[in-house]
Amino acid sequence: MSGLASDDYNTWFAPDELDRIRRRLPIVYINAVPVRVDADGTIQQVALLYTSRENSIHRSLVSVRVMYHERLRDALARHLDKDLGPMALPRLPVTLVPFTVAEYFPTPGITPYHDPRQHAISLAYIVAIDGDCSPQQEVLEITWLTPEEVLNPRLQAEMVDGHGALVRQALSFSGRMV
Amino acid sequence: MSGLASDDYNTWFAPDELDRIRRRLPIVYINAVPVRVDADGTIQQVALLYTSRENSIHRSLVSVRVMYHERLRDALARHLDKDLGPMALPRLPVTLVPFTVAEYFPTPGITPYHDPRQHAISLAYIVAIDGDCSPQQEVLEITWLTPEEVLNPRLQAEMVDGHGALVRQALSFSGRMV
Amino acid sequence: MSGLASDDYNTWFAPDELDRIRRRLPIVYINAVPVRVDADGTIQQVALLYTSRENSIHRSLVSVRVMYHERLRDALARHLDKDLGPMALPRLPVTLVPFTVAEYFPTPGITPYHDPRQHAISLAYIVAIDGDCSPQQEVLEITWLTPEEVLNPRLQAEMVDGHGALVRQALSFSGRMV
Amino acid sequence: MSGLASDDYNTWFAPDELDRIRRRLPIVYINAVPVRVDADGTIQQVALLYTSRENSIHRSLVSVRVMYHERLRDALARHLDKDLGPMALPRLPVTLVPFTVAEYFPTPGITPYHDPRQHAISLAYIVAIDGDCSPQQEVLEITWLTPEEVLNPRLQAEMVDGHGALVRQALSFSGRMV
Repeated sequence: MSGLASDDYNTWFAPDELDRIRRRLPIVYINAVPVRVDADGTIQQVALLYTSRENSIHRSLVSVRVMYHERLRDALARHLDKDLGPMALPRLPVTLVPFTVAEYFPTPGITPYHDPRQHAISLAYIVAIDGDCSPQQEVLEITWLTPEEVLNPRLQAEMVDGHGALVRQALSFSGRMV
Repeated sequence: MSGLASDDYNTWFAPDELDRIRRRLPIVYINAVPVRVDADGTIQQVALLYTSRENSIHRSLVSVRVMYHERLRDALARHLDKDLGPMALPRLPVTLVPFTVAEYFPTPGITPYHDPRQHAISLAYIVAIDGDCSPQQEVLEITWLTPEEVLNPRLQAEMVDGHGALVRQALSFSGRMV
Repeated sequence: MSGLASDDYNTWFAPDELDRIRRRLPIVYINAVPVRVDADGTIQQVALLYTSRENSIHRSLVSVRVMYHERLRDALARHLDKDLGPMALPRLPVTLVPFTVAEYFPTPGITPYHDPRQHAISLAYIVAIDGDCSPQQEVLEITWLTPEEVLNPRLQAEMVDGHGALVRQALSFSGRMV
Repeated sequence: MSGLASDDYNTWFAPDELDRIRRRLPIVYINAVPVRVDADGTIQQVALLYTSRENSIHRSLVSVRVMYHERLRDALARHLDKDLGPMALPRLPVTLVPFTVAEYFPTPGITPYHDPRQHAISLAYIVAIDGDCSPQQEVLEITWLTPEEVLNPRLQAEMVDGHGALVRQALSFSGRMV
């Protein structure tokens, strides 16, 4: 069932080529909400990534662009590893049915989700994390917060691109904060 | 909430340009399973489209490529109209959570879904039809079949690209044929 | 597929017998969130029932106790008819997978749902209404409200038993208010 | 969030009392499909319980009657422990939205599910198992089978009460066998 690695395909784009395509085709993404659960499956904490973008600091969830000829499960596993580190031990969901589909438009206000660079269609999953996370690459810090803390209006204001709405939907779907 | 029509954007591609992109990026699709339901919501019939492709006749479900800056709901409405005719009166789902996500690869065998032209990621919905369907454009005929008829092995063999698997998943999810 | 009507079975309980059982077994319920949707499936309005209980006025969703030997679809259809009137023309869902499962405990605080009379386990569905509703029996009035109005804190405070939480979950799941 | 243990309540029934209630009220159950998944979340194996009932041997999934004042999560955890042993390390789902709702009627043929003793309404979940299972109490053996083996018609014929249909729905929903 394992797909070929994306590197086996000619998926390289010249610097401005992907930018141009992004203005003409919707791009497939995955969003993951990393959580810690207790023994009965109840969400105890949510991990937010602290990143620096254009000189300001933002909190966000995991975002993955799906590559050509890459299975969704492989894209999700690859990127959780890349963002949370190799010891995170994520539990991938048994079904690919997402808890929501987030439509990011370059024009704000059409949906709660916004991405100035592109029209992205993102499948969103809750992923339980068993191991230890360590920030990788452009992630400055990974913070574990309780659902109550995540829904705090001040923290919600630090979340970008509609990720605050996404985490509210995840908590609502899980029955944890309704 | 209504998205701008896709024609307002520069989404035109030169003849071979889309073909080239299709070999390098996954493309977003929607699949719809058109059904007739009775008063209590039970599926009574499924509509299959009878199309001619490369000199052979195939049965398939509705397939929609999502355009740049087009909402999923608009893409679904536009294409149901285009495939089933203006009197179909489709009932779009209240949620965009699909019953399954079908991954079509150009390489057969990775998933049950296959598309020689491209890597497509398709959100699949069951759509109840209230009105009358009339075949449009390249659709030769629209046939309404009972769930039992759709699962008949001979009919399943006429379905292409894994649409047979997709309709089985829809019937399983609805509890109609398990 | 149609179940026998519940009256064909000995499901009558002596006045205090059901009360006693309710203190010893969880009881199966259905909750319905009646909505009006536009042509693309987006929720435009939610119907709340205005009822009088113990000398105070409350707003609530549709609640149905499932009878012995009654199918869920039959229970839902029977009760929508009973609460919203015979011209409501409800569109029952094609799947019985609920958007949430609400656990009502007689002890407050275990979940967001509470029912002093019993431990009830309720499957919750969004039901699009095509026709006209008219209040029946103990329902004083049926009010159609926009999602924004339903989420207004003053209105949420008028909702009983956790029905405010239930309608928030329905709107979150539908992607209408996140 | 933890519910009181069911023993804190008067939930004891005289020998024939529960039998009588079972003929007059639907009873709440949970069904669990225990699975082993690989690192990317794909189902590798399904556990079937081998039980003896009325002098014949049957295969089945985990079935749990929910007790008075018991949370669904507590009922699921309690019974997985009771059926699969204390070292099974089950991963309870993050949401209580089931993959299907199975309606068991004492009258065969109304749904694919049948229970001669009662009308049961069962919420069905897929549960990943990390540890080792050991048969407990009336379970003679626990067998791990591949999805292909589970769908074998001979094995399906050994499954009782519609559990064959239930495991087919679980595999369809997970995208593992469609």
